[in-house]
Amino acid sequence: MSDIDAYMNRLGKQARAASRLMAAATTSQKNAALLAMADAIDDSRERLQSANELDLAAGREKGLDAAMLDRLALTPARIDGMLEGLSQVAALQDPVGEVTDMRYRPSGIQVGRMRVPLGVIGIIYESRPNVTCEAASLCLKSGNAAILRGGSEAIHSNQAIAECISRGLAAAGLPAHAVQVVETTDRAAVGLLISMPEFVDVIVPRGGKGLIARISADARVPVIKHLDGNCHVYIDDKADLDKALQIVVNAKTQRYGTCNTLESLLVADAVAERVLPELATRFAEHGVELRACPQSQELLPGAVPASEQDWGEEYLAPVLSVRRVPDLDAAIAHINQYSSGHTEAIITEDFSRAQRFLREVDSSSVMVNASTRFADGFEYGLGAEIGISTDKLHARGPVGLEGLTSQKYIVIGDGHIRT
Amino acid sequence: MSDIDAYMNRLGKQARAASRLMAAATTSQKNAALLAMADAIDDSRERLQSANELDLAAGREKGLDAAMLDRLALTPARIDGMLEGLSQVAALQDPVGEVTDMRYRPSGIQVGRMRVPLGVIGIIYESRPNVTCEAASLCLKSGNAAILRGGSEAIHSNQAIAECISRGLAAAGLPAHAVQVVETTDRAAVGLLISMPEFVDVIVPRGGKGLIARISADARVPVIKHLDGNCHVYIDDKADLDKALQIVVNAKTQRYGTCNTLESLLVADAVAERVLPELATRFAEHGVELRACPQSQELLPGAVPASEQDWGEEYLAPVLSVRRVPDLDAAIAHINQYSSGHTEAIITEDFSRAQRFLREVDSSSVMVNASTRFADGFEYGLGAEIGISTDKLHARGPVGLEGLTSQKYIVIGDGHIRT
Repeated sequence: MSDIDAYMNRLGKQARAASRLMAAATTSQKNAALLAMADAIDDSRERLQSANELDLAAGREKGLDAAMLDRLALTPARIDGMLEGLSQVAALQDPVGEVTDMRYRPSGIQVGRMRVPLGVIGIIYESRPNVTCEAASLCLKSGNAAILRGGSEAIHSNQAIAECISRGLAAAGLPAHAVQVVETTDRAAVGLLISMPEFVDVIVPRGGKGLIARISADARVPVIKHLDGNCHVYIDDKADLDKALQIVVNAKTQRYGTCNTLESLLVADAVAERVLPELATRFAEHGVELRACPQSQELLPGAVPASEQDWGEEYLAPVLSVRRVPDLDAAIAHINQYSSGHTEAIITEDFSRAQRFLREVDSSSVMVNASTRFADGFEYGLGAEIGISTDKLHARGPVGLEGLTSQKYIVIGDGHIRT
Repeated sequence: MSDIDAYMNRLGKQARAASRLMAAATTSQKNAALLAMADAIDDSRERLQSANELDLAAGREKGLDAAMLDRLALTPARIDGMLEGLSQVAALQDPVGEVTDMRYRPSGIQVGRMRVPLGVIGIIYESRPNVTCEAASLCLKSGNAAILRGGSEAIHSNQAIAECISRGLAAAGLPAHAVQVVETTDRAAVGLLISMPEFVDVIVPRGGKGLIARISADARVPVIKHLDGNCHVYIDDKADLDKALQIVVNAKTQRYGTCNTLESLLVADAVAERVLPELATRFAEHGVELRACPQSQELLPGAVPASEQDWGEEYLAPVLSVRRVPDLDAAIAHINQYSSGHTEAIITEDFSRAQRFLREVDSSSVMVNASTRFADGFEYGLGAEIGISTDKLHARGPVGLEGLTSQKYIVIGDGHIRT
């Protein structure tokens, strides 16, 4: 066994042992640890910033671009954000131990379900060091042990944050190995982390599409993954057009780089002439490029022709594809064919069509008369999110504390036997 | 592309298309299809038995053993069982479309969740042809499309059942490809079925450990899997010993070959002398071999020494391992180390210890004062089960209709935009 094999094996064993203790930790212990972590971070601002300075200097030397350096920076405002996040997670209801559906069965036994932690969660992420704190807090509150593998460019910052996390765990009497930050930048560590089903119950990759696709392909452990967000809005011919204009402009332009941003607009033929020219004007003001099907192009001054590839594209940029469709059926068929299954919205005042859209569109979030930008753990009331799942099994949509837990069956008898 | 590649690709595409229609099928359509299938089977008893005779003859020629031939036989009683099963599934509540947790958020939007089918389910099973009917009915009722791959030794029986299923689907106006039975015995079909994430959302293998382990290792699609059932009972020193004796004997001897059968008994030191000799007498009457730790062996006349390997064994036979433990902590530690995570029970009258056992034992079913033999979809009130999951993600324990569905978020606004 090589050094790195032995090292990851040790982390895995320690995490598994810690997860047993974490599953039995009380809510008050977990909250005390979160608040003690916040205190430790607040007390270590200078230490954190000097560690971060080492990473930034190395990054500049390596020629990282401005956007990468920005993500890497632990500014005072971002440290404040970490403190705020920890106290928010402490305030969330503890999902562990919740018992539901207890019912007597004809045999006389009572059967119900109890919510329990998943066990050990591996998080693999890229440059932002504040993810270390965020991910640790969610795993801890949900009663799991965590192994965190951040980007090598943030190694000093992550280790400084890890020290604060350790102090928080110790202050609350929780096991030191409940949160472990991988201390090597050896890339083999990732391959090992995703191949230890005996020690790791689930992997959550956070980062670019390339990272997530690579991990999903290679993992021997279940992955809660988020791939593309090719989100659609369909303007029905029974839409309130004022709502439609507002929502479409908001969904596209409020932020361009997020996964819940509108990327493809469908418009019912019957209202295309009334809505498209006005949209062209508004999008021109925002500098959004329109890529249109032939039938809508004539109503969109300045639009360029859309290619087949455009219908499947997540631009993450001021670009929008536009297509006219004859009716709701065509809109649903288009979405179920091209969408990545993230978030889709219909704009309509027609009750039955809204119901059909909600039922028949196969995406993790389906909306009526609301902006796709609402698809987010905070907006949904989950308190925080570890990611947005476009998978169907286990967790779908924004994943909060509940997505880091499972349910086991509990059975209560009084000497009952099966006959 | 080879013939078999092209064939499986076609099945996959057809299943995906059918799954869209199935997701929108009404409850009454689905129930009508189930009852029409039952009628078709009832009308085809002769056809089914002559097809089955072909399989049995081929099996005898191939030298299948008596147990295999028995599993393969479609007796009149088993055909009755299929009819009964179909009408039971028709009577179950439809899980699809259930909306839960709708709440207003501070932004003004309403957010909730809707239960939806998973999409396309691949079932891979061995000799029992009645699984074809059972699996089809559960996938259909939960709004999914199914691709069924039975054992090659049951190919004629499975095709005859598939014809009845098709007639049922047609009678209810549901898509013909909602249930497809793989018509080739080429083993490459299994490898292809588990490697088409674009067409198949989840694989459920049903059969021996070898089959399940092989599929889990090779699948590129999520697998709902059930591995070992190494189930434990712990007799606490605060147990009612009459209940303890009854439950332990029932859990071990009611059936030897099932996954919820007791395989390993833990006894608190303080009651070992009072309970073990009596258990030895009762198990001797049942012809159960006891494999004991040194401390319990002296109290169990006729017991043989247990090896380290015995603690992890699923015997599926009249054999039981027995170990003395000092207390509850030791019992929980032993279980969490050696158990396969299927089902464990504590026998105790102590409330706080029962609560700790329920909370801290990390298995899919955890019981107090009840026989492990209750761990079963019918006993739990799920109506039917497609398997028992020992995984933690998605479905844990007996998997019924709900385990074949997922939840998406639904959001309702009235022109709401994010600011």
